[in-house]
Amino acid sequence: MLELRLVQGSLLKKVLEAIKDLVNDANFDCSSSGFSLQAMDSSHVALVALLLRAEGFEHYRCDRNTSMGMNLGNMSKMLKCAGNDDIITIKGDDGSDTVTFMFESPTQDKIADFEMKLMDIDSEHLGIPEAEYQAIVTMPSSEFARICKDLASIGDTVVISVTKEGVKFSTRGDIGTANIVLRQNTTVDKPEDATVIEMNEPVSLTFALRYMNSFTKATSLSNTVKISLSSELPVVVEYKIAEMGYVRFYLAPKIEEDEDENETKPKV
Amino acid sequence: MLELRLVQGSLLKKVLEAIKDLVNDANFDCSSSGFSLQAMDSSHVALVALLLRAEGFEHYRCDRNTSMGMNLGNMSKMLKCAGNDDIITIKGDDGSDTVTFMFESPTQDKIADFEMKLMDIDSEHLGIPEAEYQAIVTMPSSEFARICKDLASIGDTVVISVTKEGVKFSTRGDIGTANIVLRQNTTVDKPEDATVIEMNEPVSLTFALRYMNSFTKATSLSNTVKISLSSELPVVVEYKIAEMGYVRFYLAPKIEEDEDENETKPKV
Amino acid sequence: MLELRLVQGSLLKKVLEAIKDLVNDANFDCSSSGFSLQAMDSSHVALVALLLRAEGFEHYRCDRNTSMGMNLGNMSKMLKCAGNDDIITIKGDDGSDTVTFMFESPTQDKIADFEMKLMDIDSEHLGIPEAEYQAIVTMPSSEFARICKDLASIGDTVVISVTKEGVKFSTRGDIGTANIVLRQNTTVDKPEDATVIEMNEPVSLTFALRYMNSFTKATSLSNTVKISLSSELPVVVEYKIAEMGYVRFYLAPKIEEDEDENETKPKV
Repeated sequence: MLELRLVQGSLLKKVLEAIKDLVNDANFDCSSSGFSLQAMDSSHVALVALLLRAEGFEHYRCDRNTSMGMNLGNMSKMLKCAGNDDIITIKGDDGSDTVTFMFESPTQDKIADFEMKLMDIDSEHLGIPEAEYQAIVTMPSSEFARICKDLASIGDTVVISVTKEGVKFSTRGDIGTANIVLRQNTTVDKPEDATVIEMNEPVSLTFALRYMNSFTKATSLSNTVKISLSSELPVVVEYKIAEMGYVRFYLAPKIEEDEDENETKPKV
Repeated sequence: MLELRLVQGSLLKKVLEAIKDLVNDANFDCSSSGFSLQAMDSSHVALVALLLRAEGFEHYRCDRNTSMGMNLGNMSKMLKCAGNDDIITIKGDDGSDTVTFMFESPTQDKIADFEMKLMDIDSEHLGIPEAEYQAIVTMPSSEFARICKDLASIGDTVVISVTKEGVKFSTRGDIGTANIVLRQNTTVDKPEDATVIEMNEPVSLTFALRYMNSFTKATSLSNTVKISLSSELPVVVEYKIAEMGYVRFYLAPKIEEDEDENETKPKV
Repeated sequence: MLELRLVQGSLLKKVLEAIKDLVNDANFDCSSSGFSLQAMDSSHVALVALLLRAEGFEHYRCDRNTSMGMNLGNMSKMLKCAGNDDIITIKGDDGSDTVTFMFESPTQDKIADFEMKLMDIDSEHLGIPEAEYQAIVTMPSSEFARICKDLASIGDTVVISVTKEGVKFSTRGDIGTANIVLRQNTTVDKPEDATVIEMNEPVSLTFALRYMNSFTKATSLSNTVKISLSSELPVVVEYKIAEMGYVRFYLAPKIEEDEDENETKPKV
């Protein structure tokens, strides 16, 4: 028996919008500690990890660990039918091959039940070790989304370079080159407008803009995004979900070998 | 000689938006009592009836009963050229094969005349008898539109079931099932937010969502929609037009015969 | 060495939106007096002339007259990456085959450099003599855009006829005819809402709506548009750019010869 009642149902709607284009089918794992998901994107390049901690739900009952295979496109279709102010409850019975999403309007005058068939999905759960990163950039999520979108109109890859002074995003394409520099800035009126750089050593890494732009679909979940960079590790792009969890996207850097590309290595 | 001056011209713009996708060509009938239309949709499944009473016009002159065949797509193109605050006057001369729409801006600084060719259209006027309905649901039109749109993302038909407590809208499709229950609720701040159920006996009928979604194009005409249901009769979906008339859509229920479908018969 | 710093960078963004669909490639000419462009549209029917005077820039340095060939589509892609509040600086080095657009956010926390390759473009600079016009209409630019859009839903050409009392825009097409009359009106609350007619003699000229609708892409640059008409000359459709210049569009009238068309010659 599974019953997870989320008062701020819009969070679950936004989570699905954030990941449904990247991942087609995935297992949602439910344990006493929370509701989570880990999945590779369909081209097996990027990894998504979602956590919604049990404490974040108004009511959280999960009698035993359960894994529910869902088609995220279909799940998203159903969640789109929930109002933005609706309370969403996820319900499952042990051994059942369906899951039910219940949407309650704030006034309780409208109650909807959407029942979806579950799927059998093979998946391995990767252990993601805690790691030390060379640099961590925290910045407004809308600014990061804007930069990824803007650079994608010029080129296919972005070089992210961090120094103590700031972070530089660079690209080049047929029509020219672009460099966008954000200065570290912590003296802002609203904390979410800050750009904060925690750096152990300078780092400069190249990523496919296509994936970065996919990750920014999570922008509505959080005012800020945290980007953790290290030469030997996939980048982590993390959006916090209220006080209850996160969506994290992992993407391996591209290895740049040809000389022309190296010329674009940015100096912030 | 025909001259109908409608100060709130936006109503006529909205009427055309409501019906132009359902009906291609139709006769508008003009008599001393009002301006009306009755037409089957192009697949001859649904019926539209429009009435704008003479009293609703600032000036209403119709020397003799006239029927004007119009292409609603073309008429809509012309009415889209009227501003939302414009006064619209419909003008016709006896025996003329054109109709003129005149648009006057509120300041009278801009006056437009659009002249459209009339068409010869065969049509029978069906007498629609007044009828007793088993149940009549009055509800916010935007809520009805939202429900029809949401259910259409899951299935093709909607079962509407009414009991004293409320009205249930159900569907099923490849990805699962959906049930949305609205409770009768008359204690609302604004009367147009109420869901009111007048019921003689419980009723449960199935309709094609495609048509229901067409009808909801009339949502902008009225804050509320009235749905009249009876097992032996087409459903009537009615949108009032200010104090001057209505658009009514009629659609026959689908006969459900197979057992699986019957399982979905909803119990509110 | 060229360095032009425009505090209200959004003006340059709007200029590109106004002309990029009409002109593919063009030379921007930079002299001590200003930054300008003159180009035929790709079908060699309409002419665009842009002027941004040196005084309008916060900083304006142009050591010697330079002509920079740019692809306007690519330039527009880059300028779209500037924020609406950004300061834009155009930079070029003598003999370089690139131009750099620098975007500075108002807080100076974000600085972007976009470098674009220049092109060699053959172009002749046409002398456009000052001319006397039979009639000059100044009107709200949004009203002109609305009228051109509305008429294009009915016909392909517009007849613009000016008398002392007002200006009439007419068209005809398969579905009917349309006439829109604007009265001269100078007693408005806001000067930009006025329709002002300066007339030496009545004039009635026919133009392709397709081009007129292209010109109205400049609507966001100015609240008013000035239309200068004369039987012997191309019409001039002019949008002022703040206090610093203008975009002007020139289009030759169509010669109407067939009788049916002449019937549509409007009498305001």
